[in-house]
Amino acid sequence: MDLSTLLGIVASFALMVMAIMSGGSIFLFVNIPSVIIVVGGTIGATFIHYPFKDIFGAASVFRKAVFHREPTSQETVEQLVRFAGKARKEGILALQAVTGEVQDPFFLKALQMAVDGQEAQDLKQMLENEIDYIQDRHDGGADIFIAMGTYAPAMGMIGTLIGLVQMLQTMNDPSTIGPAMAVALLTTFYGAIIANVFCLPVAGKLRNRSQSEVLRKTLIAEGMRCVLVGENPRLMEQRLHAFLAPKHRESSFGKKE
Amino acid sequence: MDLSTLLGIVASFALMVMAIMSGGSIFLFVNIPSVIIVVGGTIGATFIHYPFKDIFGAASVFRKAVFHREPTSQETVEQLVRFAGKARKEGILALQAVTGEVQDPFFLKALQMAVDGQEAQDLKQMLENEIDYIQDRHDGGADIFIAMGTYAPAMGMIGTLIGLVQMLQTMNDPSTIGPAMAVALLTTFYGAIIANVFCLPVAGKLRNRSQSEVLRKTLIAEGMRCVLVGENPRLMEQRLHAFLAPKHRESSFGKKE
Amino acid sequence: MDLSTLLGIVASFALMVMAIMSGGSIFLFVNIPSVIIVVGGTIGATFIHYPFKDIFGAASVFRKAVFHREPTSQETVEQLVRFAGKARKEGILALQAVTGEVQDPFFLKALQMAVDGQEAQDLKQMLENEIDYIQDRHDGGADIFIAMGTYAPAMGMIGTLIGLVQMLQTMNDPSTIGPAMAVALLTTFYGAIIANVFCLPVAGKLRNRSQSEVLRKTLIAEGMRCVLVGENPRLMEQRLHAFLAPKHRESSFGKKE
Amino acid sequence: MDLSTLLGIVASFALMVMAIMSGGSIFLFVNIPSVIIVVGGTIGATFIHYPFKDIFGAASVFRKAVFHREPTSQETVEQLVRFAGKARKEGILALQAVTGEVQDPFFLKALQMAVDGQEAQDLKQMLENEIDYIQDRHDGGADIFIAMGTYAPAMGMIGTLIGLVQMLQTMNDPSTIGPAMAVALLTTFYGAIIANVFCLPVAGKLRNRSQSEVLRKTLIAEGMRCVLVGENPRLMEQRLHAFLAPKHRESSFGKKE
Amino acid sequence: MDLSTLLGIVASFALMVMAIMSGGSIFLFVNIPSVIIVVGGTIGATFIHYPFKDIFGAASVFRKAVFHREPTSQETVEQLVRFAGKARKEGILALQAVTGEVQDPFFLKALQMAVDGQEAQDLKQMLENEIDYIQDRHDGGADIFIAMGTYAPAMGMIGTLIGLVQMLQTMNDPSTIGPAMAVALLTTFYGAIIANVFCLPVAGKLRNRSQSEVLRKTLIAEGMRCVLVGENPRLMEQRLHAFLAPKHRESSFGKKE
Repeated sequence: MDLSTLLGIVASFALMVMAIMSGGSIFLFVNIPSVIIVVGGTIGATFIHYPFKDIFGAASVFRKAVFHREPTSQETVEQLVRFAGKARKEGILALQAVTGEVQDPFFLKALQMAVDGQEAQDLKQMLENEIDYIQDRHDGGADIFIAMGTYAPAMGMIGTLIGLVQMLQTMNDPSTIGPAMAVALLTTFYGAIIANVFCLPVAGKLRNRSQSEVLRKTLIAEGMRCVLVGENPRLMEQRLHAFLAPKHRESSFGKKE
Repeated sequence: MDLSTLLGIVASFALMVMAIMSGGSIFLFVNIPSVIIVVGGTIGATFIHYPFKDIFGAASVFRKAVFHREPTSQETVEQLVRFAGKARKEGILALQAVTGEVQDPFFLKALQMAVDGQEAQDLKQMLENEIDYIQDRHDGGADIFIAMGTYAPAMGMIGTLIGLVQMLQTMNDPSTIGPAMAVALLTTFYGAIIANVFCLPVAGKLRNRSQSEVLRKTLIAEGMRCVLVGENPRLMEQRLHAFLAPKHRESSFGKKE
Repeated sequence: MDLSTLLGIVASFALMVMAIMSGGSIFLFVNIPSVIIVVGGTIGATFIHYPFKDIFGAASVFRKAVFHREPTSQETVEQLVRFAGKARKEGILALQAVTGEVQDPFFLKALQMAVDGQEAQDLKQMLENEIDYIQDRHDGGADIFIAMGTYAPAMGMIGTLIGLVQMLQTMNDPSTIGPAMAVALLTTFYGAIIANVFCLPVAGKLRNRSQSEVLRKTLIAEGMRCVLVGENPRLMEQRLHAFLAPKHRESSFGKKE
Repeated sequence: MDLSTLLGIVASFALMVMAIMSGGSIFLFVNIPSVIIVVGGTIGATFIHYPFKDIFGAASVFRKAVFHREPTSQETVEQLVRFAGKARKEGILALQAVTGEVQDPFFLKALQMAVDGQEAQDLKQMLENEIDYIQDRHDGGADIFIAMGTYAPAMGMIGTLIGLVQMLQTMNDPSTIGPAMAVALLTTFYGAIIANVFCLPVAGKLRNRSQSEVLRKTLIAEGMRCVLVGENPRLMEQRLHAFLAPKHRESSFGKKE
Repeated sequence: MDLSTLLGIVASFALMVMAIMSGGSIFLFVNIPSVIIVVGGTIGATFIHYPFKDIFGAASVFRKAVFHREPTSQETVEQLVRFAGKARKEGILALQAVTGEVQDPFFLKALQMAVDGQEAQDLKQMLENEIDYIQDRHDGGADIFIAMGTYAPAMGMIGTLIGLVQMLQTMNDPSTIGPAMAVALLTTFYGAIIANVFCLPVAGKLRNRSQSEVLRKTLIAEGMRCVLVGENPRLMEQRLHAFLAPKHRESSFGKKE
């Protein structure tokens, strides 16, 4: 569960509602036709832009990013160092026994390829190739939210233009100008909220998740290469720690020995 | 037929019309001179920007993207694995027999070059060179729609400025200000619609199609290289699956054996 | 003569004039001091930004792009294939005889270097180095128009601010507000026209021309390399066709034999 | 202590306050609900965008950038040249003695690896790998401030829209329009201040600090490689000086001998 | 002396002043507190963004770019060809005699290294390394002006918001609204002028200067390599001419012999 995403969304919306209610009724800000123009138009433009399967994919990527916890890079380094020690003592085939500890399909595949006798250099290259395509797919998920965050304010502006044109064409009674213009502005308001309190920050979070997952997978690719060439586990740990911030470089050897 | 594009365009325009009609007559939003300024100006700027043949090419790229169905990457992997098996059993020349199954001219050319005895590395390099230029041409098609999506709002603003200047110069009767301004705003409205409900999302779709086509062609280039070096079909399938999302990695061998 | 550029400019301006005249006198839109601020300011900023020789160079690049016709890539491939056949039959020195058929100085230089006995790899590298610098210079030409397309709207806004400040400071007679504001808006109007109907589309056209010229020169560099290594002309044609769209790949051999 | 950051922040805010007070009471510009919308909304969007640990990390990066003094590149070159001389005279192991002079953990690690007998090429590659990841982490810190600098004006606009809608809906007494609109504009004002006087310049400073730190670490990696291959200290100094501006290239040898 | 910069700045400002004076008194456009907000705020934000030494460095880069004349690329090619001839006839050491003709410290250093017996490949690599860092430093100078060109309009908007809020809060006498708003708009006006008539074009000029200097230094690095490997001066001239536009490729040999 990604707490900061949930907290951020709930807090931002609560804030908006409070800010509105401190100045008057919240119902002034609810206008169903305006919601339909902005939300419907944004979804429509997104459907033109992306194929169905990418849009449904983005929804599942979002759900996974918010509700699914990934192991940290530190934990992955620790596991890799442990596996390296085991492989040096008991041989590569001993890695068969540890596949139960690993959930990540990418890590599993790497272990299986190692057990199957793949060469170190080949294994690393195939894993890095896979990382490239994983990154492409993840960035695609974030891109959909960025596109929605671009269309939403545009639809808001289109809605406001519709409202303004209608108001200006029928400007007989001055007392109706204010409320008519207020309603016209609502679509701009909705567009700004959808873009800045939902789509763009969520796209940013997806990109961040993707980056940390790519880092973790890069650690696995580099670590498995070291395991296959039989590198010293201490040296391998030092090598992998270069990928991490200094404060996360807690050595397994310091703890064990 | 690309359903999501069609659905998106129809749904977005239906929505706009409904939103307008819920507030008054649709005829308030139809103004032929305004349409001419925005549409004509956008086409004019696009003609300055691009040579004729690129513009007509973009129209045909668009038609193809909406109405033409490409085989999926999974289907391509399956075919390649099948061809690899055939080539291993019966020799490279047996691929001559399968050219009938393939429609894609790029795939056909790759098969023909293989049958003609091209070296694996040469073949891959020539195919990758071709992929680079295919990508350049496709991106060119999307770029035209992006350019139109940039010029349309600018033409809308120019039209609104023309309307405002005329209104301000002849501001005698206050009761005419509202309707005159409403008409002036229509060009901005048209520009925003053309850009955000047509040009920009269509450009996005073209880019997406281009990406998936490049991915498929990259699979063909890599797959044909494997066929020529006589790689094990299972290993080749594993290698090609690295390009696909995990859920699309259905092995042909699981099914067959 | 690049017809689409000329047609686009003439059509766009005709459209603007028609749109204006359908709503009133064209003279409402002519204001010499406003023209001076926007055009003069844009030129001034461009002079700060670029050295004299680049600005004059950009003007000549523009003239050349509009009035000068380049041979197409297909024609170049055909010529190269023909030269390759000649060189194979009669030796490299026979290329001396064909230099008369070639106008492009880059192609001429390549032929001369080949006749002078340059090595294939050296020749290709020197030509590619030259292509890089040609591209830099061409992009420089387009960049000047992009810069002008950025400064023009800014100068328009500055002019409008000057008009607004003057109007607001001397706001005694309400009946003068409308016309004063109309005049103030004219600079914004000029800036938008200069940027969107001239500078930015022309910059785009220059970039397109540069791309197709670079493609043609890349064909020459690759083709001359093939000529020097004595590659089979059919294979060379196939190799060069990879750079072109499929519909332009008309084989010289299909026609001849 | 980074004086220019502190001076810039203090001076800019003092200026704003002075500018406001020269025209009226500062209390016209203080509105707690407006502050809450803009600051709270910006923080909320940032929490959706980034995981907790990155946000706290950015705060510590900022504190370090403002209050922590790094050794200059010149000082680092001088140290490296001195260590190179020592290593040539007394052997690599003599570097153990100088680890006390060095605070930077990266430099310490490089020295330790040299003393431990790492190969020159390996050492350089591991250090450069580490530099890449340091740069990624630093850019991440700056990116958070850039994201905040994007959300703050958006939240300001949302706040102003809320104020405008409320004002327009309840537009009975004309005398209240002015003050109500003034309050509505305050959120835009806050958003602009937060973005342009704090977030964006601070992000720029962090990027600058990161660049100069990466330059310094690149000097260390290159210098330690030279030390390990036993290069002549004068030649090494010349090599490292290429990274510095000419005016900072003061030779240690000029001074000493 | 870079005439176009000076001419552009003087002409643009003269134009603005003329445009203003044709419509009224120039004193309507002078407001000291507004100048202080925009100029002070821009400088403040720049101080937060950049360390002191970079800001002073940018000022000196600007002074040098405007008042200092660099030798042209053609002159440099001519010198290099002359030196190559001398080195071929009299040996590398004869280059010691020509160091007096060269002012550019980079060229001097290259000559000195050649005389000192550096290897051709080493010399080129060290010079190219230095060129990279020269480019980084130059781009840094241009970046400061770009940052100032971004902050100035933002400070203008902040100043206008301050003026608007004060005006709206104290909107008793309608006759004061016009002048108050005029004053509020002045900061936006100043910001636009500072950005578009000074900062952004100057940044562009600095980038142009940097590009032509890098080109010249690249010529020196490539030329000195040719000198050291003893390449034929005619061939070397041909090679260096590939970096120049065709019209600047005047051969020294055509003239001399």
